[in-house]
Amino acid sequence: MAGPSVHPIEAPPMTATENANANAMPRHSLKDTQGMPGTLGGFILRSLQFAFALISLSVMASTSDFPTVTAFRYLVAAVSLQCLWSLSLAIADVYAILVKRGFRNSRVSSLFSIGDGITSTLTFSAACASAGITVLIGNDLNDCSQNHCSRFETATAMAFMSWFAASPSFILNFWTLASK
Amino acid sequence: MAGPSVHPIEAPPMTATENANANAMPRHSLKDTQGMPGTLGGFILRSLQFAFALISLSVMASTSDFPTVTAFRYLVAAVSLQCLWSLSLAIADVYAILVKRGFRNSRVSSLFSIGDGITSTLTFSAACASAGITVLIGNDLNDCSQNHCSRFETATAMAFMSWFAASPSFILNFWTLASK
Repeated sequence: MAGPSVHPIEAPPMTATENANANAMPRHSLKDTQGMPGTLGGFILRSLQFAFALISLSVMASTSDFPTVTAFRYLVAAVSLQCLWSLSLAIADVYAILVKRGFRNSRVSSLFSIGDGITSTLTFSAACASAGITVLIGNDLNDCSQNHCSRFETATAMAFMSWFAASPSFILNFWTLASK
Repeated sequence: MAGPSVHPIEAPPMTATENANANAMPRHSLKDTQGMPGTLGGFILRSLQFAFALISLSVMASTSDFPTVTAFRYLVAAVSLQCLWSLSLAIADVYAILVKRGFRNSRVSSLFSIGDGITSTLTFSAACASAGITVLIGNDLNDCSQNHCSRFETATAMAFMSWFAASPSFILNFWTLASK
């Protein structure tokens, strides 16, 4: 009877469904792989996503003429969303690390997976659209003297980096969801 | 002993690994879900991908000034690759339907999944870059009188449609791979 009082944050007893799942696929435990939600790797990935998206947002917003191009406005919106999403999940990861619990709930896992899929697709599409326009201005029109080419390029590159950091999170979440 | 002569295309006896896999996850059989490689749904998806990519390629290549814009050249390259990939897998699907066999091999499945991932990402990025430039020309610069705006828009829209048809194939392949 001493167990529960010594470890007050003991995991609740598993339900029948969770128990069956855990027995069926013991290899794909959520705690095994770094980068999953609730692990240190997952927190590092979220932090990278947030940092790159924030740099991209700041650099793009610092140019005076970004609202004249639709793709740049879209990039600002997409990386803002990525910032908010990554920050929320980084906080959730910190909480999970502090209480030493993974996210074992299947609904939470599918919510994270769908959210990751939407935000990373938006970030990637915005980065591609901006890259198309940046290359058009810089290489095809040779018009960098009138435009903030280097800032546009930096913002685009940071949005791509944010997407690179978001992809592992999405793939790991989706893999976990599928292997249940 | 009459069995093999009556059905000459009988499936070979399963190896130990395949047998273990089939026993472990009986719910996720490849034959269950339409849209998998080797099913009629999969063939329809491949045909749609091929048709949309081919229309996009033809419309973009019919404009005289697409080589002046890097993003449009990239679109032509990406949808050409999508055409070739989708056509190859459509032929493989037809073969699989004719001999009434699914692709049960794990290596083939992972090859299809990786190839789908690469081609659909390329098509999507090219479509996004073209969309950025098309919107720039049409909405931001209002310069449609000098450019083939409608053809650029059609090619971009068809590339997006090709990506929409490619996504289910990729997700189903990846899901199959993960659930093994």
